[in-house]
Amino acid sequence: MKTEIIAVGTELLLGQITNTNARFLSEKLAEKGIDVYWHTVVGDNQVRVAEAFNMALSRADLIIFSGGLGPTMDDLTKETVADVLGLTLKKDEAWEKELENIFARLGRIMSDNNYKQALIPGGARLLVNEHGTAPGIWLQHMGKIVVLLPGPPRELIPMFTDSVLPQLPGKNGVILSRVLKITGMGESTMEERIADLVADQTNPTIAPLAKYAEVHLRLTAKAVNREQALKLLDETEAKLLARLGEAVFARDEETMADAVAGLLFKSNLTIAVAESCTGGLLAHMLTNVSGSSAYFQQGQVVYSNRSKTELLGVQQELIAEYGAVSEEVARKMAENLRMRSSSDLAMAITGVAGPTGGTAEKPVGLVFMAMATAEGISCRKFNFFGNRQNIKERAAIAALNMLRLYLLDING
Amino acid sequence: MKTEIIAVGTELLLGQITNTNARFLSEKLAEKGIDVYWHTVVGDNQVRVAEAFNMALSRADLIIFSGGLGPTMDDLTKETVADVLGLTLKKDEAWEKELENIFARLGRIMSDNNYKQALIPGGARLLVNEHGTAPGIWLQHMGKIVVLLPGPPRELIPMFTDSVLPQLPGKNGVILSRVLKITGMGESTMEERIADLVADQTNPTIAPLAKYAEVHLRLTAKAVNREQALKLLDETEAKLLARLGEAVFARDEETMADAVAGLLFKSNLTIAVAESCTGGLLAHMLTNVSGSSAYFQQGQVVYSNRSKTELLGVQQELIAEYGAVSEEVARKMAENLRMRSSSDLAMAITGVAGPTGGTAEKPVGLVFMAMATAEGISCRKFNFFGNRQNIKERAAIAALNMLRLYLLDING
Repeated sequence: MKTEIIAVGTELLLGQITNTNARFLSEKLAEKGIDVYWHTVVGDNQVRVAEAFNMALSRADLIIFSGGLGPTMDDLTKETVADVLGLTLKKDEAWEKELENIFARLGRIMSDNNYKQALIPGGARLLVNEHGTAPGIWLQHMGKIVVLLPGPPRELIPMFTDSVLPQLPGKNGVILSRVLKITGMGESTMEERIADLVADQTNPTIAPLAKYAEVHLRLTAKAVNREQALKLLDETEAKLLARLGEAVFARDEETMADAVAGLLFKSNLTIAVAESCTGGLLAHMLTNVSGSSAYFQQGQVVYSNRSKTELLGVQQELIAEYGAVSEEVARKMAENLRMRSSSDLAMAITGVAGPTGGTAEKPVGLVFMAMATAEGISCRKFNFFGNRQNIKERAAIAALNMLRLYLLDING
Repeated sequence: MKTEIIAVGTELLLGQITNTNARFLSEKLAEKGIDVYWHTVVGDNQVRVAEAFNMALSRADLIIFSGGLGPTMDDLTKETVADVLGLTLKKDEAWEKELENIFARLGRIMSDNNYKQALIPGGARLLVNEHGTAPGIWLQHMGKIVVLLPGPPRELIPMFTDSVLPQLPGKNGVILSRVLKITGMGESTMEERIADLVADQTNPTIAPLAKYAEVHLRLTAKAVNREQALKLLDETEAKLLARLGEAVFARDEETMADAVAGLLFKSNLTIAVAESCTGGLLAHMLTNVSGSSAYFQQGQVVYSNRSKTELLGVQQELIAEYGAVSEEVARKMAENLRMRSSSDLAMAITGVAGPTGGTAEKPVGLVFMAMATAEGISCRKFNFFGNRQNIKERAAIAALNMLRLYLLDING
C-alpha cells in the first residue's frame, strides 16, 4: 500500500515548526510494513491543498493529512478534501453534543467556529479526539483510504495509534525498531565497545544518536512477521547488553524516571529529595510517574542558604566553611533529609547551574550529589557543560542514575 | 520567487529521522522574503526523485535539495538531477585534490565511491563543504535555480548560510514574524475578539496556534525592509493588545516563567511555593530563569498528607474534614508557607494529577491553587483535562499566570 503523508500548515513552510508528525506517522506505518513513498507539506491555501490532494490521489493508496482541522478560518483541510471528492459536509450530532459538553465543563461559550468542528464529509467516519475539539476523519473513496488528523501531536498521536493504525491492512513483512537508552558512559567509549556490531550488522542495523544526557541506540530489524523481527531485536539487544551492562537504563519510550520508579516499586522503598541547582526538576521527574505517591515522600527546593539551614538543618558554619556547593554540604543535606523525612532514601543536589555564579574554583556546571541510604552516605562530583537548562537536566538525570545503580545493586 | 524544498532519504520516510533541514531552510528563506510553497520528501529511488524534480521544475523557481550526496550507492540526487536536465557529470579537479588531502590526513584509503564525490554536473558551481566530503552544487538552468545540499545538518547549515543564502536574489523586502503568547482565555473566545483582524488583515497576517496551556498568535509581516516590517508588527501588536489585554503574557521566545520573573525582579518581591500535584514543576519553571535566586526562596513538594502537616503545619483535622484537594487546604498551605518562609508571596497547589485517584466529587484534573500576599489569600479552582503530564503542565502555567496577574496589578 503506497502511502503519502500531507501536512497542511503555513507555519511549517515558514520554518516556525518542524514536521514531527510525518516522522511519527512514518515510523508507525513502517512498523506495520506499510510503505511511505512521499511526505508533502503545503500551506493553508485551498488551491495548493487541492493540488497536493489530487496528486496524492493519482499515486498513493493511503493518504494521511495532518493539520488544518482547527476551528479557525485558515483551517481548511476538511473543506478542501470534501470539495475535491464532491462530498457534502454534514453535522455529526454526537460530536456536537460532545463539544457542547466540553465547553460547558470548561465554563466557556461555544462559538460558531467551534460548531464547524462537528461537520464531517458525507460517508466519512468520525475519529474521536480525546485531547481536543477537532475530530479526525476516516474516508474510503474509489479504493483509496483518506485519513484526516489534527495537527497538534498530543491529539494526533493517540488518535492515530488508537483509531487509525489498527484499521490499516498490514502487509507481508514488517520493519520494527527498538531504542536502547544509555547513560553514564561517554559516546566514544560506548562506540569503541560496540564498533564491530555497528559496522557489520545489517539486520538489525544499529544506529547511535547522542541526546542530552543520554545516548540512544536504534536497532531496526526487517522480518517476515512481527515475531521474527522481535526475535532479531532480542538477539541484538542481548549482545549489546553483554557489552554495555548497566549503562543501558531503558528501552523505547521508557524514561530514566520510569526505570527508577520501577525499581522503587519493586523494592518498596520511599524517597525524599532536596534540590538546590536542579530547582525542583528531580522531584518533577520522579512525580511524572503515575503512582509515584507510593514512593515519593517529599521534596525540598532549598535554593537559598537560609532555606538549607531552616528546612534541612544544615549548619550555617558548615556552609560558611565549605561553601553551599561542596561535598560536605551535599552530604549533610542528604543525611538530615533522610532523618527528618523518615524516608528510606534521600537524595541531595547542590551545584552551580549558571550562567552566573561560577568561580575559578567552583565553575558553572560543578554539581555535588549525595545519597543517604540505610547503608550510609555516598557522594559524587560532576562537571556538567551546557546552558542553565542543560545543566539542570544533566544533573537530574545523573541523580536518577545514581539511584538506579543503587537500587539495582540492592535488588540483586 | 516560489520555492520548493526536496529532501531525499529513505530514513525520513521510515520515520527514523525528522526533516529538520526543511524547517531550517524555510526559516532562513522567509527571513529573506523568499516564499516557500512546498516541502517534499522522497526516498533514495531514482524514479521518484526524478518525478519530484520534474514536478518542482513545473511549479517552482528555486529548488533546494537536501540529502543523497554521500558516497554510497543509494546516494543518487546529483546523478538524477543531471540526468533530468541532460547534463553530464564532470570531475572537479580541485575538489578531488581536496578529498585526497582529507583522506591522507585521516590515514584512510580513498575508495571509488569517494571519488564519485568529486563529480559535478557540467555548468554547475561547486559549493565547498567545510564539514564533510560531499560538496554542494549550484545550478542555473532555464531560469530556475537548483541547489543541492548534503543531508547532515552540521554540513548543510554552514554551507547554506555561507554559500547559498547570500547568492539568492532577495525579493524586494523581508518577511518578519512575531509570536504573541496568550493564556487564561479559550482559543475560540480569543478568536471571537479578534476574528475581523484574523480574517481581513493580510499584512501582517495573524495565525493562531493552540499549544498546551497557551494559544500563540503568529504575526507575519512582509515589507521592503526590516524597519517597515517591525513597524507593521508593532501596529498590529498594539491592536491585538487592546482587545486581548492581560491575556497576552509574552512575545517570541519569552516563556511564562520569564514574564513572571521579570515582574518579580521589578517589584523586588520574594516567593515560595508548595506543590502537591505539580510535584516540583512550578519550582522548576521558576528556577529555569537565570538570576532566579534573587526572588526564589524555597519550594516544598508536599506529596503526602504527612508532609503537608509536618512541613507546612496544615492540621490533620483540616485535611480529614475537607480532603487534601480542597480550597481550605490550599489556602492553609499558602498561608502557612508565606509565614514560615518569610516570603512576600506564597503559592500553593493541590489537585488530582491522575490517571488514578479521581472520584466523582473530585475528578482527575481538579486543582485548587491559593496565593498568599500582603493583601490576603486568594484561591482559584480549575478543571484541567489531559494526561498526568498535561495536567501538571497546565496547572503550573495557571499558577504562574495567577502570579503574573497579581504582579501586573500591584506594579500598576
